[in-house]
Amino acid sequence: MDFHSKKLINDPNDVVTEFIEGLVETYPGLQYLDGFPEVKVVLRADVSGLTYDKVSVISGGGSGHEPAHAGFVGEGMLTAAICGDVFASPPVDSILAGIRAVTGPSGCLLIVKNYTGDRLNFGLAAEQAKSEGYQVEMVIVGDDCALPPPRGIAGRRGLAGTILVHKVAGAAAASGLSLAEVAAEAKRASEMVGTMGVALSVCTLPGQVTPDRLGPGKMELGLGIHGEPGAAVADLQPVDIVVSHVLNQILSTETNYVPITRGSRVVLMINGLGATPLMELMIAAGKAVPRLQLEHGLAVERVYTGSFMTSLDMAGILCTISITVMKADQTILSRLDAPTKAPNWPVAADGNHPPAKIPVPIPPSRSKKNKETLSRPEQLSCQGHILEVAIEAAATAVIDLKDSLNEWDSKVGDGDCGSTMFRGASAILEDMKKCYPLNDPAETVSEIGSSISKVMGGTSGIIYDIFFKAAYTQLKTDSPSNITGPQWAAAFEAAIAAVSKYGGAKAGYRTLLDALIPAFSVLKEKLVAGEDSVEAFVLSAEAAVVGAESTKNMRAQAGRSSYVSAEILASVPDPGAMAAASWYRAAALAVKNNYNKAS
Amino acid sequence: MDFHSKKLINDPNDVVTEFIEGLVETYPGLQYLDGFPEVKVVLRADVSGLTYDKVSVISGGGSGHEPAHAGFVGEGMLTAAICGDVFASPPVDSILAGIRAVTGPSGCLLIVKNYTGDRLNFGLAAEQAKSEGYQVEMVIVGDDCALPPPRGIAGRRGLAGTILVHKVAGAAAASGLSLAEVAAEAKRASEMVGTMGVALSVCTLPGQVTPDRLGPGKMELGLGIHGEPGAAVADLQPVDIVVSHVLNQILSTETNYVPITRGSRVVLMINGLGATPLMELMIAAGKAVPRLQLEHGLAVERVYTGSFMTSLDMAGILCTISITVMKADQTILSRLDAPTKAPNWPVAADGNHPPAKIPVPIPPSRSKKNKETLSRPEQLSCQGHILEVAIEAAATAVIDLKDSLNEWDSKVGDGDCGSTMFRGASAILEDMKKCYPLNDPAETVSEIGSSISKVMGGTSGIIYDIFFKAAYTQLKTDSPSNITGPQWAAAFEAAIAAVSKYGGAKAGYRTLLDALIPAFSVLKEKLVAGEDSVEAFVLSAEAAVVGAESTKNMRAQAGRSSYVSAEILASVPDPGAMAAASWYRAAALAVKNNYNKAS
Repeated sequence: MDFHSKKLINDPNDVVTEFIEGLVETYPGLQYLDGFPEVKVVLRADVSGLTYDKVSVISGGGSGHEPAHAGFVGEGMLTAAICGDVFASPPVDSILAGIRAVTGPSGCLLIVKNYTGDRLNFGLAAEQAKSEGYQVEMVIVGDDCALPPPRGIAGRRGLAGTILVHKVAGAAAASGLSLAEVAAEAKRASEMVGTMGVALSVCTLPGQVTPDRLGPGKMELGLGIHGEPGAAVADLQPVDIVVSHVLNQILSTETNYVPITRGSRVVLMINGLGATPLMELMIAAGKAVPRLQLEHGLAVERVYTGSFMTSLDMAGILCTISITVMKADQTILSRLDAPTKAPNWPVAADGNHPPAKIPVPIPPSRSKKNKETLSRPEQLSCQGHILEVAIEAAATAVIDLKDSLNEWDSKVGDGDCGSTMFRGASAILEDMKKCYPLNDPAETVSEIGSSISKVMGGTSGIIYDIFFKAAYTQLKTDSPSNITGPQWAAAFEAAIAAVSKYGGAKAGYRTLLDALIPAFSVLKEKLVAGEDSVEAFVLSAEAAVVGAESTKNMRAQAGRSSYVSAEILASVPDPGAMAAASWYRAAALAVKNNYNKAS
Repeated sequence: MDFHSKKLINDPNDVVTEFIEGLVETYPGLQYLDGFPEVKVVLRADVSGLTYDKVSVISGGGSGHEPAHAGFVGEGMLTAAICGDVFASPPVDSILAGIRAVTGPSGCLLIVKNYTGDRLNFGLAAEQAKSEGYQVEMVIVGDDCALPPPRGIAGRRGLAGTILVHKVAGAAAASGLSLAEVAAEAKRASEMVGTMGVALSVCTLPGQVTPDRLGPGKMELGLGIHGEPGAAVADLQPVDIVVSHVLNQILSTETNYVPITRGSRVVLMINGLGATPLMELMIAAGKAVPRLQLEHGLAVERVYTGSFMTSLDMAGILCTISITVMKADQTILSRLDAPTKAPNWPVAADGNHPPAKIPVPIPPSRSKKNKETLSRPEQLSCQGHILEVAIEAAATAVIDLKDSLNEWDSKVGDGDCGSTMFRGASAILEDMKKCYPLNDPAETVSEIGSSISKVMGGTSGIIYDIFFKAAYTQLKTDSPSNITGPQWAAAFEAAIAAVSKYGGAKAGYRTLLDALIPAFSVLKEKLVAGEDSVEAFVLSAEAAVVGAESTKNMRAQAGRSSYVSAEILASVPDPGAMAAASWYRAAALAVKNNYNKAS
């Protein structure tokens, strides 16, 4: 087995049969003929030529263009697809087998891309089928607009526009039209469609070395779907320039390849030829639509963006798109919009387009509060006063701990825990004087979160923001004038739960929760036991400090600390836990001192 | 502007907003919020939070994973997708704007892939939205099975299995369930799904050089969706070995990541992470299904194959897939099968799978004739005798012309025209003695085609095969016992038309038609004028010779000859035209000689 090319395939000779096996496993509505390896025909599982009363629509050609054509087999589109080997036309017997399998008395239409091998093999199969009494018509699609006419015997290549012809024909057949009518619609569609490719690199066949025929910063215009050289190599340009150039070429009045003039209605197909990410296809679509509308004066009725007819990239880098423009009247639009079960026909692209999409305005916050008018009350309530001294004490404790926090963090993290916490604490002190509505504890807690999110940044900033937002949501259900101890405890519990849920940490993970969770446990226990709220707060603060110190014995579960040795970890506590214990204890002591004074 | 990476993008900073612009141009049912560049939210065009009476389902995360998640917005799946910059979690304000835009009284479910940034930003937005009075639930998906537990605070990464959770939740919400019920179904789905990636190369961010951390012939197992290193690097293996390994890892009873045991019903997702061709994805699907069935004893109920959650390949080669297996009961299957308008949810993958697909037998030819029993009649009719001498003369003329044809062809082609025609003519002479039913001219003409197709090969072989098959189809409508001159002429006309149609050549293209078309013109003219058929045949043969000689003055339109200088072309006639004139003339003269004798 040869693994020159880094691909997942088992054996390059089996790729097409193995592709078909996977395809029919994926789509219950698809089947294949029992003729591997020569006969590689995918067909609708629900159609048998013996009983089929509609016109069959059959396409095919060399493989390596997936999902074309087998991915377009399904009610409303192709009845069967004949798959050749990679880039090789299928043999006549294979085509004949497909025709016989799905063609009933209404006959079949063969839609063939304009390549000599396909024309001849499908042509001979058509003649053979006719000689057996089948009604057969063929429509040849040559939608390439890259080269100027005349093109001689080879003519214009069949490219991604063929997919649109499939859809028109498939929908016409599904609607019950006769073979002559279906063929006429397909032929008409084929005359209305033009395509041009642009490639940034080329594909290679298995075992071949990638020919880097493009230098750096170059792109190729007018490429085909078999790695044939493009019509021209040009300097790499931004996508809107490239798109503009390709559209001008397709719509050129000199070549007159498509009968599209100002005021025409058109559909647009942006096709990825290989490795091109969907993001880039969509970007090209977004550029092409306004160009068509504004520069060419066309109404863009539908846009199909995706990888519909690719060029197998067996070893190299390929970033290629083709752009297809098709003139569309109401009949064609109704055929394109008609439902189909073909797996790879794009969904949700049907229906009328507005001339321009005006984005939806961003909805306002439902919050009633007006940030502009927030201010510190002139007269503090008793509770407001206690809140103020508690916040001041807590923030000051963090500020005082700055250097220790940084020192601990330099051993187990990136050394900035103290500085980060300092920024948050300083902002709280500053904002509190200006705008904390201290007589409303819930709103004050919310404002603490806002101060933090404004200056702290990083994971610790967002975690504290989550902490205070969750506490706020819990507190604001209570009466603002007097929050009881149990209500504060409930808010504390909600805040811890939110931090654990969104942050992913639990007790023992060496985080701030290792200070806060023990604190909450004691707080709850004491309150349940009927202890005075302030006493419970102070006792819980001791648990916070003990918890924070105990982080020395914990293994880190995340971040930088998880790469630090157990020995070093054992020498320092988690700085986040120490900071949390510090502000919590300072707040508790301040409440105790002032509550006693106040009462 | 920086074009280090050969991509079509305009400016790397604008890729996400430009992607969204293209997306909404492509899909009329999608809209976006007017908040570029910070707020990048795609939402259903038909949903407004003010009036929406169902549970909204919102997902999102860093961009670069297209079509995830914006391509899954649509009725029955996501209500909105919040897009961050490439590989960066979206900011809180952007998520909040999305929640406010689509969330009505029934609330919203946030489905978040398990990355710290996403958890925290979506978490804070959820808390903020709750504080504004919205009902919000969050389900975090961590489906990665590459690494053994425990995984600490970071946990298992969210990979392509998230898409299946989206679908389950979206369908549950569409069916009118409450927020708690939708969240419960999503959570349950997230606990049933496991995913593992395998990469053959890695993606790179814009401006970075591709790190070729994999040597040649190596592959990476357990890769994430942001180019993070995989769990292991191994020797490149054929796809069935790779698939087998990945499935064993996902279904490992040691890690016990998914509750799947023998006899379980499962769905399978084969996801292309980037440049992986659809052909290879389908091949992997085709290998995975029997492995799951036979080795793991599972019923594979659905298969989803495509590129659903990719990893943006900004400059490098990427050929990566992930495999997802999800335990599925009837409820989950009905959610997965429920209709959706999300553009990138796979269509035609719904519905029950047979345990194995038995391919459809190749249908027999409708032709009544039995090749085995064809034989030369013992007694030739008068017409049969003339046919025999005409065929013999024609074939002999081609054989005699072998060296001249090769000589002419060596100047304008590949020099084998004479040898190729010689093979066909020899086969005709040989087969005629054995099996041509000479008293039935139509069947004899058909057999000439068969002799040619058996030995000639190449373009000329298939063109002559088409010629004789088309003539046969026309002739067989006539009485076999006596074909008149006008009937032969009609068959000749049909044969020329088929060769021109499928071969693409016209008069003046320097091909065999430049002998045959003038011959037919004269034949028809003389017959219409009432001339004797045999005389008309002979006169038309002179026109064939003149026509063939005149090819010296024609420019070649196809093949090798089109690269040959006009000077050289003028020195030789087209060998194909000369061969055609030669056998046609020989046949005409033989008919004349023998017809006169016979009459």
